[in-house]
Order: sequence, then structure tokens, then C-alpha cells
Amino acid sequence: MSRYKLIIAYDGTHYHGFAKQPNAITIQELLEKAIGSILGQSIKVIGAGRTDTGVHAKAQCCIFDADTNIPVERLTGAINSKLPKDIIVQKVEKTTADFHPRYAAKRKTYRYQILNSEVQDPFLYRYTYFYPYKLDIERMREGGNHIIGEHDFACFCSTGSGVHSTTREVYSLNITTQDNLITIDICGNGFLYNMVRIIVGTLIDVGIGKKAPEMVQEIIESQNRKLAGYTAPPQGLMMLNIEYE
Amino acid sequence: MSRYKLIIAYDGTHYHGFAKQPNAITIQELLEKAIGSILGQSIKVIGAGRTDTGVHAKAQCCIFDADTNIPVERLTGAINSKLPKDIIVQKVEKTTADFHPRYAAKRKTYRYQILNSEVQDPFLYRYTYFYPYKLDIERMREGGNHIIGEHDFACFCSTGSGVHSTTREVYSLNITTQDNLITIDICGNGFLYNMVRIIVGTLIDVGIGKKAPEMVQEIIESQNRKLAGYTAPPQGLMMLNIEYE
Repeated sequence: MSRYKLIIAYDGTHYHGFAKQPNAITIQELLEKAIGSILGQSIKVIGAGRTDTGVHAKAQCCIFDADTNIPVERLTGAINSKLPKDIIVQKVEKTTADFHPRYAAKRKTYRYQILNSEVQDPFLYRYTYFYPYKLDIERMREGGNHIIGEHDFACFCSTGSGVHSTTREVYSLNITTQDNLITIDICGNGFLYNMVRIIVGTLIDVGIGKKAPEMVQEIIESQNRKLAGYTAPPQGLMMLNIEYE
Repeated sequence: MSRYKLIIAYDGTHYHGFAKQPNAITIQELLEKAIGSILGQSIKVIGAGRTDTGVHAKAQCCIFDADTNIPVERLTGAINSKLPKDIIVQKVEKTTADFHPRYAAKRKTYRYQILNSEVQDPFLYRYTYFYPYKLDIERMREGGNHIIGEHDFACFCSTGSGVHSTTREVYSLNITTQDNLITIDICGNGFLYNMVRIIVGTLIDVGIGKKAPEMVQEIIESQNRKLAGYTAPPQGLMMLNIEYE
């Protein structure tokens, strides 16, 4: 029995998120079926993190255990031949039996994209949050700086996540723009349920002038979800990268 | 009666090209229906150029004539409310009664994108030609340089176009790369039927070493379609920009 590590990219538009659930098509289920059909055995896939309905991934890291004679260098092509076009295995390699993609993750980076334009874009609507009101990027950056560091992020966590601690460390939060596209990259040691989307909703409130940039610090200190902004919609979010030691 | 000029962006994946035809859904037809339904009159849309099935446009320029009291600044939003998400009007403005988007065009720029990678990309497959064999970009640039200038491009023209002259001037051909994505931008005073896609097919033959870069000049001089490369697939092509005086 060997453990295999996969890097997966997917367009989440048509899926009910990563994690398997009854009566809905998920990334995990399709991966397990595709790998299982290639290897002729029942397969359980574990991912580095869940992504919600409509959320994308550029490099989700997964593992599965299997016993097979198929050479590892042939697995990428074989598994992709059984997957739809919007879920693509980028790489398969053998890893150690104790490697766990969630527990071993040291840094995770999420990207959120906002199309800040008066009109929609036919090439970006699946991957961006269309926001037609003018956002002040400098204010958003100022607000974002308060998020960097180790904090109790209870204010940026949707209920129902069931985690023990709501303390996380955010290593960086960078906001860049290209034409009308605003890209927010957030890197940290871990993220709470909906944390990135609530941070983005809060920074949007700062960007349109509804909240002062320094209010972000007060919101964090309050630990009160109600003081933070709304949960920005899923299609702007992408799991960009997971780093291991 | 006033003439209106529209800039349209569309993802051509699900359409049988721009030009109206029976028994197929086209961009022109959907535009005419959307504008007609907003203005309550029958509308004829004329575009700067046709795009084939599956080809995209970032800035197709169109006109229509209409008599309406609706202020021009409200038309963009109104028309977009009647269009699917993959066809978006970027701008509407009044123009002169003699403006014709095809005859008045001075320069057209097309973009062709190739994903030169071993594996597909779930975010790019609709907009790129997936080509997994290693391409030599320097060779492609060398070959592309022979295309710049005024030439009889009969060798790069599919039959059935019915044009009088096959002479066109290509002002520039630039090949850039970002990670595995190869972008070919071609600007000229006009293009023959399938010209950009046959140029790309020919440059791919050069890039994999099947043709020498200097053969591109011989192919042009031969005026023989059979000596040029294949017609690269439509989804990599985008009408990028049309310039007027």
C-alpha cells in the first residue's frame, strides 16, 4: 500500500464544493470515482481543505492510499481521462505514509478577485465578484494591514464550523489591481470557516467608505461577527496554494 | 433615426459565431433580439467582422440604427439585462450616420492563446488551444517575422471566403509567454477567412521543428494553402481590438 499526493485544479462553478455529501456532486466524489475506476479499487481521497460550493482551486493538495502496479508517472494522464474538463489533476507523486495534507500544511494562500467595473466581463464572471461601485484600494490596503498577524479571528468566522480555537496567524494580505480587476491574496497558517470571504466583505465596506480602515482592528478585538462585513460570494474565491515543509 | 455604436465582449464557446444564420444561435441574433426588445422595434446589427463558432471577442464593434427617446447612457445596462452572461455590451454611444464598423476599420488585432503544458487547465480550456508538445518560442518568433508586412496571403486563406484580393498588411506579430501560456497578437489592416488560425497552425509547425522558420516566407510566396500549416482550433482565438481613425 502506498500513499499518493495529488495537486488538483478545479473550476468550482458547477460543484457543491470539495467535500463529499449525499445528493450533490462534489470534487471529492468525482476524484474518488475517477481514481477508483483507474485503479480498480475503492479509493478515499483526503484534501488539504474544504472549498464551498462555487469556490475554485488552483492547487488543492490531496492524498489517497492504494496498491497498484501502474507507474506513478502514468497516473496523471490516466486519472484526467476519467475527470470532467473543469477538474484537472496537475501532478501525482508518491509520498510518505504519514503525510496528511491538512495537518502538515504550514501556509495556505487564498485569492479573492473582484471585478470593480460598471459592466460585467464574459470571461471573468465565473471567477470574480462583480462589484460596480468604486472601491478605494488605498483604504482597503490600510484596513487589510490590521488583519496581518496572530489574532483571534472569531469576528471573521461563520457559525457552524465547530473549531476549538479561532486564533490564526495571517502572514500577508496583498491587494493588487490590473485594469478593473482587484486581486486580494491572503496567506496564513490556517483559515476559519468563511474567513476569507468575510474579510473581503469587510474590506469592501472599507473600500466604499462605510467603515473606516482602523475599524478593522476594533472589529477583530470585538470578536463579534456582527460588526464585520458580509460574506462575499463564493465565485471570487480560489484556494491558490498550500505550502508544506 | 440615429446610429449607435456598441463595443461588445463575448465568450463564443456556446455560439455558432457572430453572423446570423438559420437553425443556430449566434451573437448577432441575440444582440438584435435584446436591443429590439428594449427599443420596441426591429433592429439590424452590423459588426466589424465575423467570428466563427467558438471564437471570442474582447471588443467587437457593432452598429445599429434606431429611433428612441431612451438616453444613450442608459442603453448599456438596459441591453445587458436582456443578454446572457457570456455576451456583454461594454459601451454604447451615438455615432455618425455614415460610420460603418467594417469599412471604417483601420487596424484589427486578433489574439491567439496556446496552453503549452503537459496538463490541461480548468480555467483556460475554453480560451486556449491545449498543445502538450514543447514549442520553441524563439523559432516561432523568427517564423512570425516573415509574416509582418504587405503580402498576398492566399496561402493563409481557407476556401469559400469569396474575397477579391488576398493581399493584406500585417503591422505586427508579437509572441509573449507567461508560465505555460503562449499569446500571439497579430495586428493588421484586415484578415482573410481563417487567416489567423492558419498562421498559428503554421507557427506551431515551426515551433515543434516540422518547418524551418524561413519556410514561412517560402509558403507566403507560394500562395499555396497546402504548404501552410493546419487551421488551429477556434477556442484559442479572440478578436481583441478594432481601431478607427
